[in-house]
Amino acid sequence: MINIDKMNIAEPYNMFRKYYEEAKKKEQKIIEAISISSYDKKNSIVDSRFVNLKYVINDEWIFFSNYNSPKSKQFKSHDQISAVIYWNSINVQIRMKAKIQKTNSEFSNEHFQSRDMTKNLLAILSRQSEPMSSYDDFLKNYEKDLSLKFENVTRPEYWGGFSFSPYYFEFWEGHNSRVNKRKFYELKNQEWKSGFLQP
Amino acid sequence: MINIDKMNIAEPYNMFRKYYEEAKKKEQKIIEAISISSYDKKNSIVDSRFVNLKYVINDEWIFFSNYNSPKSKQFKSHDQISAVIYWNSINVQIRMKAKIQKTNSEFSNEHFQSRDMTKNLLAILSRQSEPMSSYDDFLKNYEKDLSLKFENVTRPEYWGGFSFSPYYFEFWEGHNSRVNKRKFYELKNQEWKSGFLQP
Repeated sequence: MINIDKMNIAEPYNMFRKYYEEAKKKEQKIIEAISISSYDKKNSIVDSRFVNLKYVINDEWIFFSNYNSPKSKQFKSHDQISAVIYWNSINVQIRMKAKIQKTNSEFSNEHFQSRDMTKNLLAILSRQSEPMSSYDDFLKNYEKDLSLKFENVTRPEYWGGFSFSPYYFEFWEGHNSRVNKRKFYELKNQEWKSGFLQP
Repeated sequence: MINIDKMNIAEPYNMFRKYYEEAKKKEQKIIEAISISSYDKKNSIVDSRFVNLKYVINDEWIFFSNYNSPKSKQFKSHDQISAVIYWNSINVQIRMKAKIQKTNSEFSNEHFQSRDMTKNLLAILSRQSEPMSSYDDFLKNYEKDLSLKFENVTRPEYWGGFSFSPYYFEFWEGHNSRVNKRKFYELKNQEWKSGFLQP
């Protein structure tokens, strides 16, 4: 699930809400999966991965990550990203372009404290995306640490939220006829302009 | 469905085949959906969209598009892309990095001839991703043209295949414990080197 209680009410956000409710009704699996694509400027390489979208608050789309991970470094060197959601239950994709930044530390603290301890221990232990010799050894160590039953774990500085505010949306509806319906919204001078794209 | 009859048999490809069969067994919806991310060098912008993966032949991953579309222009200016598949039925994502190029025209012709006429007519009529004033007008015109029953339609030059050959794979398995299993393969001197990444 994505927390959209405090989401913006501009037109593209209402469109998002409509599809989100439809996908929920169709019991969309892992509805919060979103692909985030970034640019590694140093090596001139595009990189992508799925993350879990946790909140949309006003116009900020928020997920959490290790701040030392490759994607965090990529956001730092090139702060523009693209994001895509594809809900196969309703055959709809939602494409966005945005600038990305860290959330403030109070927000990251709050979210960290709301999570269960086992997840937080993992956030602390993992040097996300660094190579390791064995998956099984990592799992064993993690389970050993878990058994120590940590309490009052505080958020480490290297873990927190990222927030992006889209300046472009495309809502793509797949149709059986292949004449797919594609509506876009573009933010210009703080107003959303919309139109259709050829299929 | 993706046609993988003539797929490579190196280790990452066998891994792909294993997950593909698992996802098929779980009746994964729209199993061929793959996100392709590209870099628009002129505007320094990362862009992403889902397409339908049609074939994996040896180490070439193939989909089809309009050659005048924004993505085609992006591939021309920056031929490195990232690709991600996420199969929610088995909670697995497959991340790839690759160089992309057009398939040869014989291959595009063959595939075009194998498709049904209604799809081909659309490929001819659509100036993909260009703005248009009305979706309904486009649909009406398309349906009018369809009723003329075109025969022996030949592939227009502005439509054809793209093929990418990954030099990097990551197979990401989501686990309930959150200790996700991440195995990567990297092509070095024509050999696949593998290892695990921290969750």
